[in-house]
Amino acid sequence: MANNNDPQFVKEIADMQQDFPQWYTDVVTKTGMVDYGPVKGTMVIRPYGYAIWEIIQDELNKRFRQTGHQNAYFPMFIPYSFLTREAEHVEGFAPEVALVTHVGNEELPEKLVVRPTSETIIGTMYSKWIQSWRDLPVKINQWANVVRWEKTTRPFLRTSEFLWQEGHTVHRTAEEAQEETLTMLEVYREFAETVLAIPMLTGRKTDKEKFAGADATYTIEAMMLDGKSLQSGTSHNLGQNFAKAFDIKFLDKDNALHYPYQSSWGVSTRLIGALVMAHGDQRGLALPPMVAPYQVVIVPIAAHKGGVLEKVAEVADRLKAAGIRVYVDDRDQSPGWKFNEWEMKGVPCRMEIGPRDIENNTCVLVRRDTHDKTPASLEGLEDTVKAYLDDIQHNMLLKATAFRDSHIVDVADMDELKAAVDSGNFARTMWCGARSCEDAVKERTSASSRCMPFDQTPVGDRCVCCGKKLSKGEGYTIYFAKAY
Amino acid sequence: MANNNDPQFVKEIADMQQDFPQWYTDVVTKTGMVDYGPVKGTMVIRPYGYAIWEIIQDELNKRFRQTGHQNAYFPMFIPYSFLTREAEHVEGFAPEVALVTHVGNEELPEKLVVRPTSETIIGTMYSKWIQSWRDLPVKINQWANVVRWEKTTRPFLRTSEFLWQEGHTVHRTAEEAQEETLTMLEVYREFAETVLAIPMLTGRKTDKEKFAGADATYTIEAMMLDGKSLQSGTSHNLGQNFAKAFDIKFLDKDNALHYPYQSSWGVSTRLIGALVMAHGDQRGLALPPMVAPYQVVIVPIAAHKGGVLEKVAEVADRLKAAGIRVYVDDRDQSPGWKFNEWEMKGVPCRMEIGPRDIENNTCVLVRRDTHDKTPASLEGLEDTVKAYLDDIQHNMLLKATAFRDSHIVDVADMDELKAAVDSGNFARTMWCGARSCEDAVKERTSASSRCMPFDQTPVGDRCVCCGKKLSKGEGYTIYFAKAY
Repeated sequence: MANNNDPQFVKEIADMQQDFPQWYTDVVTKTGMVDYGPVKGTMVIRPYGYAIWEIIQDELNKRFRQTGHQNAYFPMFIPYSFLTREAEHVEGFAPEVALVTHVGNEELPEKLVVRPTSETIIGTMYSKWIQSWRDLPVKINQWANVVRWEKTTRPFLRTSEFLWQEGHTVHRTAEEAQEETLTMLEVYREFAETVLAIPMLTGRKTDKEKFAGADATYTIEAMMLDGKSLQSGTSHNLGQNFAKAFDIKFLDKDNALHYPYQSSWGVSTRLIGALVMAHGDQRGLALPPMVAPYQVVIVPIAAHKGGVLEKVAEVADRLKAAGIRVYVDDRDQSPGWKFNEWEMKGVPCRMEIGPRDIENNTCVLVRRDTHDKTPASLEGLEDTVKAYLDDIQHNMLLKATAFRDSHIVDVADMDELKAAVDSGNFARTMWCGARSCEDAVKERTSASSRCMPFDQTPVGDRCVCCGKKLSKGEGYTIYFAKAY
Repeated sequence: MANNNDPQFVKEIADMQQDFPQWYTDVVTKTGMVDYGPVKGTMVIRPYGYAIWEIIQDELNKRFRQTGHQNAYFPMFIPYSFLTREAEHVEGFAPEVALVTHVGNEELPEKLVVRPTSETIIGTMYSKWIQSWRDLPVKINQWANVVRWEKTTRPFLRTSEFLWQEGHTVHRTAEEAQEETLTMLEVYREFAETVLAIPMLTGRKTDKEKFAGADATYTIEAMMLDGKSLQSGTSHNLGQNFAKAFDIKFLDKDNALHYPYQSSWGVSTRLIGALVMAHGDQRGLALPPMVAPYQVVIVPIAAHKGGVLEKVAEVADRLKAAGIRVYVDDRDQSPGWKFNEWEMKGVPCRMEIGPRDIENNTCVLVRRDTHDKTPASLEGLEDTVKAYLDDIQHNMLLKATAFRDSHIVDVADMDELKAAVDSGNFARTMWCGARSCEDAVKERTSASSRCMPFDQTPVGDRCVCCGKKLSKGEGYTIYFAKAY
């Protein structure tokens, strides 16, 4: 709804210091990004939110193509029996899958699973398509909706249905599959930092937290402004697990049949939630320019005066021709009302043009990240604005990185771990690797997420939980955090 | 699978004159566009088919934006009770909807419909979002998967799950809704002719064939090479039917509450089937350049000779830089094998470059539509190829239009109608407008589709069925055809 003129539209947002969850809900709903669907746990992605998703899709598609992937589309309905073929997979997903049992009044011969992820159906097709080493590698990605029934849901972060992409690749060797798994994690990390301006902690999940059916799961983890961790994307090395379950075999150069090695990886509409909670402030959303549906909003000042709207249109056309996403807000509202609304909606750059500016051949630029206000000449404005947006993008990453880095605390025992996590930090420490210690941390603290970073520089010599002395190369450097 | 080297890959395609349905199945499956999913009636859209769909999406999105629409995403699950609120709608869709009744082992309190179309769920949201005339118009489009259980299915043409876009708009007045309905039909027609090179018959469906819940349904109908009609897109004027069923009301300038007027419109992956059956030939697929994933495939001749692959790469880079979609086929197969494969896959332009060409600074171009072969200088090749592709695009539309126009037969009685349709034509005639005559044509002939063209120039003065004499302005000019 482009022309919402309701003066009530700029609404109150909860204080993020007092009630971060309510602040989040206010921001995502009152900016027109999302609404609740009629079925519990579902969301409606409204145009302002969906425009962000489309930019994310474009940027990822570019990267997927550059790394040799092709898009395809697989059916959403999976015969229930498929799910049961991989033991860990069915255990992980069976309780939360939606089941189609009837069409009209007729019962189906076999109930159908609405895909929670597509390893099983894609594996079935791959077993048909792959015969020879010449058919490898297969590197396919799919953009799709998936369904996982969740008890507690929040828009973008955890919903019964969400949108995502899932890459599914098949390789001749274990090495190639591992290389692909890590390449795609790096694609995600680079994308998140470059486009979303969110620094990512990269590493491996513990066996307890890995994907149901994978040999290993790698993750990008982002720190939200409340110090909690948002798992923002995962890349799985599936080994031969699904190949064996779905009988994917290929004739190798040795003229013998072998099971290939697979990877899968995905990011979802959850990334929109990450954007909100990594960059927002008391006034609402703050969007990095690269992912903002409107990078510049022009607000005419004294729009009724002769020449103002004409000049605004002229400037807008120039910026659009330079590839900048511009919106002219010529609605019948006061400039102050518009300033509030576009600040709430997180537009990176506001431009004001009034009669005095026109006289001086200038405009005023206001940046969302620092609220700084600066005049700019209309001459060469395209280059000025591009540099301005680049600077905002850069600054937002710096700011988020500084925040994150100042909220990582090295801890040596359970009390320190608890205190660090409770006060909104990532706790970095050592872990002996025992499942009992992992479970104990979860039970005795609020740290519900773990990530073993690629950088395994030790930060101590004892397990944070059992206190076991770790010799060189023993145990893991690990981050504990509250998880979304 | 970019590197399928199986020598068996170029496979036999049925003779289209002998067995058109088998020819279609061979073409869509053997070119790697589509495969059958494990659940009956579902399809897997493989990379070559999906790449076509992505181009269709891009081209339509451009047009939707230009006409002021925004994309959004609504949940796939609809409470069953919603479906029942609009009487015609539930009657039309209830028998073919897939129903989710359970999550894991638990039964849901209300069964959920997997959307067959989204008027009901979108109407529910609109009733929440729309309060004032200031909120209108709302012009939202969604790209989504939908499910309609079909008895007889064929890839792209009719499948249980398919991909589509559905536009849903809300307007203050009946006139605006009607204008939107016809504007979007015109967007479809222009897109189909410009991009897909398929001429479209535009008109209105009879009341019997209109969308369940609409006041009127408009259609674009394409003639396939077997003379049958493929309904390729529809645009519905929904009047106030869904507004009343879902209680969408707005405060108008007269300070009173009114029901707004709505439209909805959609095209689907069916368009890929239209492309196949409008342009294909005995050798397989023929794609118009604007929608071809690869517009040019370069086949190196005597690739082992020094300099050939280098020159091919150089030419490919130049064409890519000029915005042309190019694929270099440097696989270890004979040129003849490659020619066959790319002809089957419908690539508009094949380019051959061998040692002799390099000596002469030339290449050879072969066009898919006419099979003509012509040498071209490597100098200024970008412009040459662009003009060449434009000519192919133009020629394919001309050819399809000439075919269509030569297969429209004016008929005056039922015998003529039957003969015309049975021998692969559209029968154009007069209809009195009575449902009984419409039903009789369906029962007594193989004509299963009807379209009342916008051009209502009379082609006779008697109803083709009952023979009733029609005075000026009475009855309808109408096309009857066999329908896909």
